[in-house]
Amino acid sequence: MKEEYEFPLEDYMSRERFERMKRFSQDKTTPCLILDLDVVREKYEELRRNMPYAKVYYAVKANPNDEVVALLRDLGSCFDVATRFELDQLLRLGVTPDRMSFGNTIKKERDIAYFYEKGVRLYTTDSFEDVDKIARAAPESKVFFRILTEGLGADWPLSRKFGSHPEMTRNLILHARDLGLEPYGISFHVGSQQRDIGQWSTALGNVGNIYSWAEDQGVKLRMINMGGGFPAMYTDPTNPIEHYAGDIRSFLTNNFGDELPEIIIEPGRSMTGDCGMIVTEIVNIAKKSTHDLYHWVFFDIGKFGGLIETLDEAIKYPIYFEKSGPTLDIILAGPTCDSMDILYEKTPYEMPAGTKIGERAYILTTGAYTSSYSSIYFNGFPPLATYVMK
Amino acid sequence: MKEEYEFPLEDYMSRERFERMKRFSQDKTTPCLILDLDVVREKYEELRRNMPYAKVYYAVKANPNDEVVALLRDLGSCFDVATRFELDQLLRLGVTPDRMSFGNTIKKERDIAYFYEKGVRLYTTDSFEDVDKIARAAPESKVFFRILTEGLGADWPLSRKFGSHPEMTRNLILHARDLGLEPYGISFHVGSQQRDIGQWSTALGNVGNIYSWAEDQGVKLRMINMGGGFPAMYTDPTNPIEHYAGDIRSFLTNNFGDELPEIIIEPGRSMTGDCGMIVTEIVNIAKKSTHDLYHWVFFDIGKFGGLIETLDEAIKYPIYFEKSGPTLDIILAGPTCDSMDILYEKTPYEMPAGTKIGERAYILTTGAYTSSYSSIYFNGFPPLATYVMK
Repeated sequence: MKEEYEFPLEDYMSRERFERMKRFSQDKTTPCLILDLDVVREKYEELRRNMPYAKVYYAVKANPNDEVVALLRDLGSCFDVATRFELDQLLRLGVTPDRMSFGNTIKKERDIAYFYEKGVRLYTTDSFEDVDKIARAAPESKVFFRILTEGLGADWPLSRKFGSHPEMTRNLILHARDLGLEPYGISFHVGSQQRDIGQWSTALGNVGNIYSWAEDQGVKLRMINMGGGFPAMYTDPTNPIEHYAGDIRSFLTNNFGDELPEIIIEPGRSMTGDCGMIVTEIVNIAKKSTHDLYHWVFFDIGKFGGLIETLDEAIKYPIYFEKSGPTLDIILAGPTCDSMDILYEKTPYEMPAGTKIGERAYILTTGAYTSSYSSIYFNGFPPLATYVMK
Repeated sequence: MKEEYEFPLEDYMSRERFERMKRFSQDKTTPCLILDLDVVREKYEELRRNMPYAKVYYAVKANPNDEVVALLRDLGSCFDVATRFELDQLLRLGVTPDRMSFGNTIKKERDIAYFYEKGVRLYTTDSFEDVDKIARAAPESKVFFRILTEGLGADWPLSRKFGSHPEMTRNLILHARDLGLEPYGISFHVGSQQRDIGQWSTALGNVGNIYSWAEDQGVKLRMINMGGGFPAMYTDPTNPIEHYAGDIRSFLTNNFGDELPEIIIEPGRSMTGDCGMIVTEIVNIAKKSTHDLYHWVFFDIGKFGGLIETLDEAIKYPIYFEKSGPTLDIILAGPTCDSMDILYEKTPYEMPAGTKIGERAYILTTGAYTSSYSSIYFNGFPPLATYVMK
């Protein structure tokens, strides 16, 4: 038993917003994800206000919910599209192809052709083979080149799989030009939930070098795609977006002077993470042995129901229990017959000791990278149900 | 470049079976999973032949495909059921409740009531709270008690989350009896894809101790549920089922003499793993830098499309490329915009150097723990399509 349970709810959302979302969830079966679109609107406007020089390409994969996409469409956002399936969704929702980029470096030639046929003219790339495919399937399109970054400091790093080394990127630029494509810009991604703002400085330095080199080769690059990486509010502290925006603005000026190239950002997590709250029921509270120091708390949602980002306890969601009083140290796990389906074993979480089986708990900041990850039928569980608050 | 590509196809299936499955897959869009039910039948019969004293409760979660379940129903199997959703499926397929156990230690009281209402009378448990729920919602039912095992040597260990320490298990037995339930047996699970047969010896020793103790308390236990753990054929070597069966039979005799209690086994992976083959298309083959020693090979299926058990490279699927000739060392990755979606980076895999983008590759032994894990819409990708070979 420890001291009084204190959960800093107001760090994540106002008490009033929490109560509204909770009320809305009351008649819903758990587990479910509640989305508050007002938060998406606020996040979009906040980002536009802080980085007015940057064009927003929302990373659809973070939360592909139709209503989220439709709202961002109405707010004027562009879209970073990962697959032909996302493209079909966006077209169905009336997003025009000039507001899209095919932002996945891993793509089949026939999928590139499909994007081209639908009117998309902006493609990312990071390999010779992919440039060849784009040149054949989407002739004369704009391409931007993703460079490898290290992703140090990111809670969900993206370092090794995407991008090529700057030295190879230079060869790719010339190769693309020779094949009739328009070498348009350079992209990087510092890693998702990147809490070290200095990472943008390093990356922009690399981009600056490539820009100068390209100019010497007679290639005028016009765009920088700074990817995502802006944080949502999990339990580890992060800087406010103002700090990111201010620092990044000065890194840009340092490298490119006052006349900036076209700047693109691809927020996903920072746009929709905070808008979501998962409501779960406590299925069991148990000890493994008589003198166990920990209580195991089992939720009706786990890694395979949408919380896969708890892998290696990388993303630490704020979890709110409503009782007060002394607390217990807990290990949190999901409901499936898979031992991997443990949420937090090493990260300390607490629960008011008076909490009972059958009560609900609230997992905050779960609007991004949750519902679309959830498994189709593992252990028979249906995918996570999502409700947009009205 | 290395020596000639040699893939030991015949270690996993006959050339003729491979050709038949390949032919069947030819007109299907990739990625897809092809199931050969003949293999399930062979596996079931092989297990029955080798362990005639054991009742098979197929772990539905391993592969819940309707046709797989229907075949095992016709072969006389019982079923280990994880959730009310699986229960509904089994009832829909005409499996009677006397052939089922509710095999998940994490369950809501209203779900227990639902099982009870449908006629299920056999429940697993590992905590006081859960015993209380069963006593209220499924009065007078048979319960079996899962004990903690360590899972050493298992490729996919199940150690910490399920079961209670033997000392607490004793208290649970008395508690269940006092609440009018029938303490029926002891269960353990040595870990999935358990390659160390000695683990069954240790576990059965623990079970033997609990049996004797219970008898002293006037409680006659009647059943031992040895769970699963029997292997499928991945790239790491395993013993044939004959060795498992022979050794386990002698561990049983050592502990329980010639008159064995009722023996239950819950094979999942060993029943359906070998029956499946995933067909994938190579989306890209690329280097990250000019002098990269590895080629990155991107499939159109990855961790989120059904290969989640490649996490930490735990399960090493045999992957067959059809070309011959010298080989390249490769890193294998999936098609999503998630850097975690890398299949094998440390485990050495080879590919014939002449393999081309757009060709297919065959991921063997993928009949268990694949399709039902696949995500509902991550990056827009639909869940893995499954076809049963006719």
